[in-house]
Amino acid sequence: MTTPNSEQKIVYTLTDEAPMLATGSLLPIVRSFTAAAGIKVETSNISVASRILAGFADRLTDEQKQEATDTLVELGELTKDPSCNLIKLPNISASIPQLKAAITELQSQGYDLPDYPDEATTDEEKDIQSRYAKVLGSAVNPVLRQGNSDRRAPPAVKAFARKFPHSMGKWSKASQSHADYMRDGDFFSSEQSITMDAADDVRIEFVDKSGNVEVKKTLPLEAGEVFDSMFMSAKALDTFFERTLQECKEDGVMWSLHVKATMMKVSHPIVFGHAVRVFYREVFDKYGDLFEQLGVNPNNGMASVYDKIKTLPQSQQEEIEEAIHACYEHRPEMAMVDSVKGITNLHIPSDVIVDASMPAMIRNSGKMWGRDGKTKDTKAVMPESTYARIYQEMINFCKTNGAFDPTTMGTVPNVGLMAMKAEEYGSHDKTFEMTQDGTMRVVKSDGTVLMQHEVENGDIWRACQTKDPAVRDWVKLAVTRSRQSDTPAIFWLDDERAHDQQLRLKVEKYLQDHDTDGLDLSIMDYNSAIRISMERMIRGKDTISVTGNVLRDYLTDLFPIMELGTSAKMLSIVPMLNGGGMYETGAGGSAPKHVQQVQEENHLRWDSLGEFLALAVSLEEMGIKNDNADAKLMAKALDAATGKLLENNKSPSRKVGELDNRGSHFYLAMYWAQYLAEQTENADLAKRFVPLAKALTENEEKIIKELADAQGKPADLGGYYHPDMAKVDSVMRPSKTLNDILASL
Amino acid sequence: MTTPNSEQKIVYTLTDEAPMLATGSLLPIVRSFTAAAGIKVETSNISVASRILAGFADRLTDEQKQEATDTLVELGELTKDPSCNLIKLPNISASIPQLKAAITELQSQGYDLPDYPDEATTDEEKDIQSRYAKVLGSAVNPVLRQGNSDRRAPPAVKAFARKFPHSMGKWSKASQSHADYMRDGDFFSSEQSITMDAADDVRIEFVDKSGNVEVKKTLPLEAGEVFDSMFMSAKALDTFFERTLQECKEDGVMWSLHVKATMMKVSHPIVFGHAVRVFYREVFDKYGDLFEQLGVNPNNGMASVYDKIKTLPQSQQEEIEEAIHACYEHRPEMAMVDSVKGITNLHIPSDVIVDASMPAMIRNSGKMWGRDGKTKDTKAVMPESTYARIYQEMINFCKTNGAFDPTTMGTVPNVGLMAMKAEEYGSHDKTFEMTQDGTMRVVKSDGTVLMQHEVENGDIWRACQTKDPAVRDWVKLAVTRSRQSDTPAIFWLDDERAHDQQLRLKVEKYLQDHDTDGLDLSIMDYNSAIRISMERMIRGKDTISVTGNVLRDYLTDLFPIMELGTSAKMLSIVPMLNGGGMYETGAGGSAPKHVQQVQEENHLRWDSLGEFLALAVSLEEMGIKNDNADAKLMAKALDAATGKLLENNKSPSRKVGELDNRGSHFYLAMYWAQYLAEQTENADLAKRFVPLAKALTENEEKIIKELADAQGKPADLGGYYHPDMAKVDSVMRPSKTLNDILASL
Repeated sequence: MTTPNSEQKIVYTLTDEAPMLATGSLLPIVRSFTAAAGIKVETSNISVASRILAGFADRLTDEQKQEATDTLVELGELTKDPSCNLIKLPNISASIPQLKAAITELQSQGYDLPDYPDEATTDEEKDIQSRYAKVLGSAVNPVLRQGNSDRRAPPAVKAFARKFPHSMGKWSKASQSHADYMRDGDFFSSEQSITMDAADDVRIEFVDKSGNVEVKKTLPLEAGEVFDSMFMSAKALDTFFERTLQECKEDGVMWSLHVKATMMKVSHPIVFGHAVRVFYREVFDKYGDLFEQLGVNPNNGMASVYDKIKTLPQSQQEEIEEAIHACYEHRPEMAMVDSVKGITNLHIPSDVIVDASMPAMIRNSGKMWGRDGKTKDTKAVMPESTYARIYQEMINFCKTNGAFDPTTMGTVPNVGLMAMKAEEYGSHDKTFEMTQDGTMRVVKSDGTVLMQHEVENGDIWRACQTKDPAVRDWVKLAVTRSRQSDTPAIFWLDDERAHDQQLRLKVEKYLQDHDTDGLDLSIMDYNSAIRISMERMIRGKDTISVTGNVLRDYLTDLFPIMELGTSAKMLSIVPMLNGGGMYETGAGGSAPKHVQQVQEENHLRWDSLGEFLALAVSLEEMGIKNDNADAKLMAKALDAATGKLLENNKSPSRKVGELDNRGSHFYLAMYWAQYLAEQTENADLAKRFVPLAKALTENEEKIIKELADAQGKPADLGGYYHPDMAKVDSVMRPSKTLNDILASL
Repeated sequence: MTTPNSEQKIVYTLTDEAPMLATGSLLPIVRSFTAAAGIKVETSNISVASRILAGFADRLTDEQKQEATDTLVELGELTKDPSCNLIKLPNISASIPQLKAAITELQSQGYDLPDYPDEATTDEEKDIQSRYAKVLGSAVNPVLRQGNSDRRAPPAVKAFARKFPHSMGKWSKASQSHADYMRDGDFFSSEQSITMDAADDVRIEFVDKSGNVEVKKTLPLEAGEVFDSMFMSAKALDTFFERTLQECKEDGVMWSLHVKATMMKVSHPIVFGHAVRVFYREVFDKYGDLFEQLGVNPNNGMASVYDKIKTLPQSQQEEIEEAIHACYEHRPEMAMVDSVKGITNLHIPSDVIVDASMPAMIRNSGKMWGRDGKTKDTKAVMPESTYARIYQEMINFCKTNGAFDPTTMGTVPNVGLMAMKAEEYGSHDKTFEMTQDGTMRVVKSDGTVLMQHEVENGDIWRACQTKDPAVRDWVKLAVTRSRQSDTPAIFWLDDERAHDQQLRLKVEKYLQDHDTDGLDLSIMDYNSAIRISMERMIRGKDTISVTGNVLRDYLTDLFPIMELGTSAKMLSIVPMLNGGGMYETGAGGSAPKHVQQVQEENHLRWDSLGEFLALAVSLEEMGIKNDNADAKLMAKALDAATGKLLENNKSPSRKVGELDNRGSHFYLAMYWAQYLAEQTENADLAKRFVPLAKALTENEEKIIKELADAQGKPADLGGYYHPDMAKVDSVMRPSKTLNDILASL
C-alpha cells in the first residue's frame, strides 16, 4: 500500500494547439489512475498566450493577473529540484506572425496588451519589444533542458513496428545514390580544440592584414571547459559545389542539398547561400548588383529572389526568370521539395533539413523526387564532412545489404550530450562570416593565443563550448543506460577530430568514476560506430549510441525512421543534472491543421502516443525514486495498454466520424484498467481497478457512440491561442457515460 | 671480414623457359658478388625435363644418368634443414600436351623414354603413366612450400610506384558496380568446424534416405587439427544466379562471374557449371539430353558446348547456336574476357580468376569490358560469400573515397596460413557433388558423429584440414613480421565463421608464447579488417594482414595491384617450419612467348626483378643467421641497386634491339658494385669492389653495344624443355667485355 506523499507530484505542461486540446481529454483519465498510486498530476501552462500575459502582468486586471504567473521561470526553478518530474508536450516556437495573431486574440478577449512594434524607436516601444522577444522562437527548451538526452524506442512501439512494419523502399545494389561532402577546407579539417586549465575570460579576435585587432567577443570559460574553433573556406566550398554539380551532370544523377539551417542557425544559411550562388552562377553574375539593391539574400534561398524582384517592372522580372530557367539547361536536375508546386531544393533553407531529409531518402530506396514527380537516384550534398560521412556509410550499407527490415532489426537508442548548451555548433553568437582576409584567434586574458586560423574574406569561422559537468553527466548517463538496458554502448568520438580528442580524455577519466564491470563500452570513430551498430542491428541486436549534440539530433531521427517509420514515437527523456527528469512527448510539432479540423468538424486527429509513453517512464521514475511499487506497476500497466492499443489499431484516424483522439484515450483507459484489474502482483490495486475495468468494458459501445456522435459539427473553443478552458473541457469530454465512470472512481 | 663458411650456401633453382634462360645471364654475376661474402650459390635443376629423366633413370645410359637425380626429393629434404636458403624461380606446371612435347624433345635428343600412354591398360603402361603423373601439374610447390607465407612489397618497388605511379581508373561516386554474393545456402552459412582432442581416423560418410552408409573417405587427423565441413545448396545457388541476372537486366548493368576454379579445383568448376546452365537455361532445357549424349560438360564452360556440337550436322549446329543467341536477347549483357574474339565470361572456367579479375575491375573504375569493346559498370557475381564481401567493401570504399593513389598510399603485406596444406578449400579429395538427397557426416572411429549436414542432390559438400603446428608457426610469423617491420598486424578472423572461431582460440593461445609488448595486434572480421586497412592505407599507413590460405591468395593480388600495378613485384617468402627459408620470385609464370622471341630474334624480355628482390632477402637472412655482416651489406647494396635500376628505367624492353634481360643484369651489376665500392660501412668490401665498379662504369657503353649487337637474329638454344646448357651460356652471355671483367674478380 502506498501512503499518499505530497512529494510525489508530476507536472504536466499545458501548451498550445492540438496537444493542449488532447490534454483536455487525457488528463482527467490520467489523474483518476495516478491518484491510486498516491501521485498528484499538476499542470503548468507554458502556452504562448500564458507567456505573453506573464510579460504584461502590470497592464492586467486583478482577475486577469491570476493567469499571469511566469510559469516558465517557475519550471526553470523546478528543473533544479531533484524531485522534478515534468511531462513536456510540444509547444509553439512562435514566429512574429504567430505572436501578432496571439496578441490580437488576447486583445479581443479584453486583455490590455500593446501591439507588437515592428520597429522600436521610443523607450516604451523598446520595452514592449523586449518583453515580447522573450516569447519568440525556441524559448522553452533552453530553459527546461537542464540535462543530457536519453532517447529510445519504447518496447511497445518497437513491438508494434516488428508486427506491423512501415513500408521501406527496396534498395538496388546498383543504386547511384550517394552522399558527398568536402574533403578539405571544411570545419572538420580546420578544427582546433583546447581544454581550459583554469577559468578565464577569453577573447575571440580578428586581426586584419595591417595588424589591427578587433575583439569580436569575450567569453567567460570555466575550468575544464572544452573550447573549439574552426572555419569553412568559402573558396573551397564554392569549388566543392561546382564539382558536385559537374559530377551529377556527367553521371546523370539528381543533385540535392542537405543542411541544418535551423540548428546551425548562423553557419548553415551561409553555406546554403553559397550553393544558391554557385548553382545560379550566371544569374548572380549578371544581376548581382541589382539583387543587392533589391535586398536579395541568397542565404534565404531563391524564394528571396522571387520575392524581391516583384517590385521590378514585369519585363525585367521575366528577363530574370528566363535567366534562372537558362541555368537549369546546363545544370543537373535538382531534387524537388514539392514537385507539384515547383519548389526546388534551393528555394528556402529550412525546407531540406538533413536529419529529416536524409532518412526519408534512405527509406525511399535512396531516391528523391524529380521535377517530373518521379523518384530518382540522387547525390546528397552535405558540405560539412564532420557528420555527413555517416549517411554515406548507411547508403553503402543499404546497397550492400538491402533496405533495413523493421520486423527483425534491433534498435539504436541515443545518449546525447546536450546539457549546458554543449556543442552548439554554428548557432547563435560565436559564428562569424569574414569580411576581409586576416587571422581569427582565441586569446586568453593574459594575451596567450590558444588557437588561430588564417582566414579569407567570406570564410565562415565559428567557435563552440562544452562544459565539463555536462560531459561528466553524459558519461554517467551512458553507463547508467548501458547497465539498465544490458546493452553495449559506443561513444562516437573520432580521433581525427580535435574536439573529440579532448572529449575522449574526459570520457576515459570519468568512466573510472563508475562500476563498468560487465558492461560493453567502447569508443569509435563515427564510421566504425555506425557501421558496427548497423551490422548488429540487422542481426537483431541493440547498441546504444553515445554521441555529441549534433549526432544526437541526427541519429534520433535516422534510426527511429528506419526502425519505426517516424521519430515521433521515441521516448525523449532529459535526466536533469540535478537529479530530476523531463519527459518530452511527440516531435510532431503542435499541428495547426489539427485545431482547424476540430473547429470545423469536431474531430481531433492528434495522436497522444507520445504522452502515453512519456507518462509511463515518468511513473516508472517516480516509482524508483520514491520506492513506490504502485507507481512502477502503474507504469508497467500503461506500457502494456499502449502496446495493446497499437496492436488493436485504436490510434486516432484522420477522418471525421471515425475514432479520434478522445476515443483513443478511452481505449487506453480501458486497457490500462483491465491490466491493473487482472494483474496479480498487487491484489489491493487490482481490487481497486476491477470496477473501473468492468464499467469501461461493459460501456465500450455506448461510450464510443457518444464520442462519435459529438463529431461532424463545428466546435467552439473560445479561442485559438487562448481558448476558454471550460469550453475545451466540454468539447474534449463529450461522453457523459465515460465522465461519470471516471468521477465514480 | 668474413671467414668462408661451408654452411653459407644458397640453392638457386634452374627451372624452365624464360626464367631459366635469364638465370644463364644473372647467375654468373650473382656468384661473383656473393663469393665476396663467403656465400656459395649452388643450382638445383627442377625443370620438367629434369624431373622426367629422374623418373626413368633405369632406361638411361650411364652418362645420361648424371642428369637424372631426383632433385625435387633432394630439395624436399633440404626444406627440413634449418639452414635451407632456397631461391625458387617460376617453373612449368605441366599439362598433358606440355608433358608430351617434352617427352618428344627428349626422345629426339637420344633419351630412351616411353611415349605417354593416354589410356593405360597393361601393367607396364600403368607404371609408365604413374611415373609421368608425378611430373604433371603443380608438383613442385607442395613439396617445397613447407611453411607459411610472408609476402610484401619491397621498399625499392614501393618507392618506384610512389614516384612513377601506374595508371588508376577514376571512380565515380555514382558507379553502379558492385559485388554480389549469396546470403544463405552457401559454404559460409553452413560451415561447421571442430578441433580434434586426440588423433583419430575420421570417416566422411554419406547416409542415403534409406539409411545406407557409404564411406566416402577416411582421413587420419592429428590431435589439435581443425577440421571443417560445409556445403553449398545447388537450389540456392541457381536461385541466386537467376536473381543476379534479373537484377542486372532491371538495373542495366553488366553481369560477370568471378570464381577461382584453379584453386578451388573441385568445387568452383561445379559452381561455374551452374552459372552456365542458369544463364543459358532455355538451351539446356531444350538440348540437355543431346548434350549429355555428346558429353558436353557445362563445368568446362560454353567452350565445351561449342566443341562437342562440332560433331553434329551443320543445320543442327546452327539451330543450337541460334538458341544460344536467343538467350542473349532476354539476359543482361555479359562481361567479356575478350570482346574482339567474342569470348564471354562463361566460356572457360579458368578465364575469370577472382583474385586477378576483381583487382583489375577495381583498378579500372569498377568497370569490365562489354561486347562492344567498351567498359561498363558491372555486377561482379561471386557466389561464395565467405571471401566475396571484401570486394564489395573495397568497391564501396572506392565509391566513397575515389580510386587509390599509388603515390601516397601505404602498404598491406600479408602473413598467410599455408603450411602443411592448411585450408585447401574445395581442392582435391575432400569435395563431393551429391548425387542424391541424404546426410553427409564426419564420424570418429568410435562412431561419434562430429558434424553433419542434410544435403540434396546436386549440393556441393566439402571438408578442409588445418594442422596445429601450421597455425602455431603462422602466429609466430605474424608476431615476427609485426616486430621486424614495426607495423600493426590484424588477424582476419570472423566470429561468424565456425572455422575462424576454432582458429581464434589457437591464435589467442599461441600469442601468449611470444613477447607482444609494444606490438599492435588485433583480431577482426574480414569487413572490419579490410576497411581499417584501407582507411590506414589512404593515410599512408601500413597494416599487415594475417590471413588464412584463401585470403592470402586473394589479398596478395588485390593490394599489390592497387599499390604497385602488379603482384609480380612482391616479395614472396616461405619461412620454413624447420627454420629455413624459400624465396619465390615472379608470379608471372614461365612465359613461353619469351622463349619464342629469343629463338626468333635473340631478345629476352623477361624481367628478373623478382630474382633481384628474392636474392636480397635471401642474402639478408643469410647474414642474420650466420652473423655475416658482409652478406647483410651485400643485401642492402642489392636493394639499393634494384631501386636505382627501377628509377633509371633499366628494366627490359619488349622490343628487339632495345635493352633486354641481359642489359638489365649489367646495370644491376654496375649499380650493385658502385654501391659497394662507395659505402663506408665496410672498407675491406669497398676496396674489393672498387675495381669492379670502375671497370663496369667505364665500359658501360661498350658492354651495352655488345649486348645490343647480339640481338636481331635467331638464337639456337638446343632445345626448349631440355636446352643445351653450353648453348644457353653462349646465348645469354654475349658480351666478352662483361664476361672478362667478371672473370677478373
